[in-house]
Amino acid sequence: MGRALQLAALAEGRTSPNPLVGAVVLDAQGVLVGEGFHAAAGGPHAEVGALAQAGGRARGGTLVVTLEPCCHHGRTPPCSEAVIAAGITRVVVAMADPDPRVAGQGLAQLREAGMEIVEGVRTEEARTQNHAFLHRVATGKPWGILKWAMSLDGRTALANGASQWISGPEARQWVHRLRSRVDAVIVGGGTVRADNPLLSSRGRRPSEPLRVVLSRQLDLPGVASAGHAQLWDQAVAPTLVAHGPEAPTERRAALERLGVPRLELERSEPRELLEALARRGCNKVLWECGPELAAAALGQGCVQQVAAVVAPKLLGGRAARTVLGDLGLERMEQAPLLGEGRLGRLGPDLVWTLEHPTSTSP
Amino acid sequence: MGRALQLAALAEGRTSPNPLVGAVVLDAQGVLVGEGFHAAAGGPHAEVGALAQAGGRARGGTLVVTLEPCCHHGRTPPCSEAVIAAGITRVVVAMADPDPRVAGQGLAQLREAGMEIVEGVRTEEARTQNHAFLHRVATGKPWGILKWAMSLDGRTALANGASQWISGPEARQWVHRLRSRVDAVIVGGGTVRADNPLLSSRGRRPSEPLRVVLSRQLDLPGVASAGHAQLWDQAVAPTLVAHGPEAPTERRAALERLGVPRLELERSEPRELLEALARRGCNKVLWECGPELAAAALGQGCVQQVAAVVAPKLLGGRAARTVLGDLGLERMEQAPLLGEGRLGRLGPDLVWTLEHPTSTSP
Repeated sequence: MGRALQLAALAEGRTSPNPLVGAVVLDAQGVLVGEGFHAAAGGPHAEVGALAQAGGRARGGTLVVTLEPCCHHGRTPPCSEAVIAAGITRVVVAMADPDPRVAGQGLAQLREAGMEIVEGVRTEEARTQNHAFLHRVATGKPWGILKWAMSLDGRTALANGASQWISGPEARQWVHRLRSRVDAVIVGGGTVRADNPLLSSRGRRPSEPLRVVLSRQLDLPGVASAGHAQLWDQAVAPTLVAHGPEAPTERRAALERLGVPRLELERSEPRELLEALARRGCNKVLWECGPELAAAALGQGCVQQVAAVVAPKLLGGRAARTVLGDLGLERMEQAPLLGEGRLGRLGPDLVWTLEHPTSTSP
Repeated sequence: MGRALQLAALAEGRTSPNPLVGAVVLDAQGVLVGEGFHAAAGGPHAEVGALAQAGGRARGGTLVVTLEPCCHHGRTPPCSEAVIAAGITRVVVAMADPDPRVAGQGLAQLREAGMEIVEGVRTEEARTQNHAFLHRVATGKPWGILKWAMSLDGRTALANGASQWISGPEARQWVHRLRSRVDAVIVGGGTVRADNPLLSSRGRRPSEPLRVVLSRQLDLPGVASAGHAQLWDQAVAPTLVAHGPEAPTERRAALERLGVPRLELERSEPRELLEALARRGCNKVLWECGPELAAAALGQGCVQQVAAVVAPKLLGGRAARTVLGDLGLERMEQAPLLGEGRLGRLGPDLVWTLEHPTSTSP
């Protein structure tokens, strides 16, 4: 199972909306004869790859897989049928598939076919590996990470708005890697206007994450005013602009003339946006937004993890941008301690990653 | 010399305005026969203690001392005379005494008396140990540490002013220990009004550090208004209120009625205050003030080290207190990277201590 978990991890950030899955096949003598992992949605499932590699040697053997084999026709045929056809006699799984189309029925089919089923092997690790997928299936929203870079005195820009660069090159590269492991990166209109960001992984994954702008009124450069934004150039990465019903017609048209896809939400709110992104297959999103949208995302349970990059410099500035707008706290006890922290160094900077307790336990 | 440095460190925070000094005496055969350290201003110097312990065995022996022996009559007689009288033939010193009353003359006297002098042994460690003393002698101002506790999003209070407690008990105990190693703790009037702090080491050192309030107008509880402040109770620790010439007469009188000593400065500014505290024998001070005074102290070169306690919680709040007021930065390059950082854990909290580059190299 350790090997199967390793195989699964190879595709981190590339399987959404599907989970990460790894599988190995042992022959009747217990010799490893096949390995596979799910590399991308629409591609072969892990079990199928491992069984194909094993060929006839799978007969009478064991399949070890990190997730219950599926039993439904999706973009690929059911894995349960392939497992039966290969003559496997024993299946070891880490966890059941919470997808309502599977949910134990895959294992039931295999059991009916006479196989021995061993469940619950290294389940915690398997659940941790697929925390984003499990969160999305359980809540209907992708797992949210809120990331920011600030000075040691908690500022994300100078009073005049200058923000490039607070952190050093190592931290900026870490952000590119972080983006390569998520399905979408979200900012608000304010960040587009103030920072004109590129928001890509700089080629660290074959298809860049979706860049999403949440903008109530579409008050955006080149849309509501002159100017341009790096995000409108979709040769680099896809961009989606989500807005509310209040967005003016002429701005919608301006956006379409730029060739940027629009998504009209019932309400221009983080929660609505994440539900729409989950329906589009996102398991994990990264919030890289300004203080007001960040506070709204936190308040609406859209942040399961925070990642703070802290640079060893002092910026000051009474009016300088801060990390978060109003959270509505009246007493110190209302601010829970964030848990499960991981502290790292990125050149001169620190990065502190912590679970946010609004996270819905999958 | 390693042992002498260890001995010197035993009195950390208790020798001001004097430096830390440690000494050992070896007899003519090189056997350790005496140890001493300077325990408090006005008390015996390290050399005298070590020589007294050695007694007649010092004759023909070696004195190892972290700082050049003094040659002037202060509160105690010159050490150079005691060294000569003891019959020492060799003196090993880590560094010369920068005090203009000594400044090499102590070693010159010993050399004239026919002793062999070995200089420059572990000089860097000795200078580091006495960084505060050296800074005060070089600049006429005590070494300043600016300390704060903030949430992960850079807030030092909620929007309604509540600030107790952002950090956990371990971090608060660390602050008490930090106070036990400084000569004075400084706040502004705003901190007295908002937080009514005690500012003591909670008995961690025999005489508590001086608690200093810098208040231009003496707009303080029990002085300009009804109410009281913990700082006015001097049974716990001494308090000094520094103010500018603009402080109203009736408030000066009210302060005197409370029995709290006053210090009138030419201008109610951090620099003037530190010069006055240096004249009163302070080598090291701790700024525990609000954002405006902290920014002024930084701007006037009164901060050589910053110590940020970061709690893993999010407070938000558009109007919530931040660490620093305006530093007048226009471009990111004007914010230098702080150097020589030390990162620690205090229960759930982090503490990051860094040198501030305005520090005058001693």
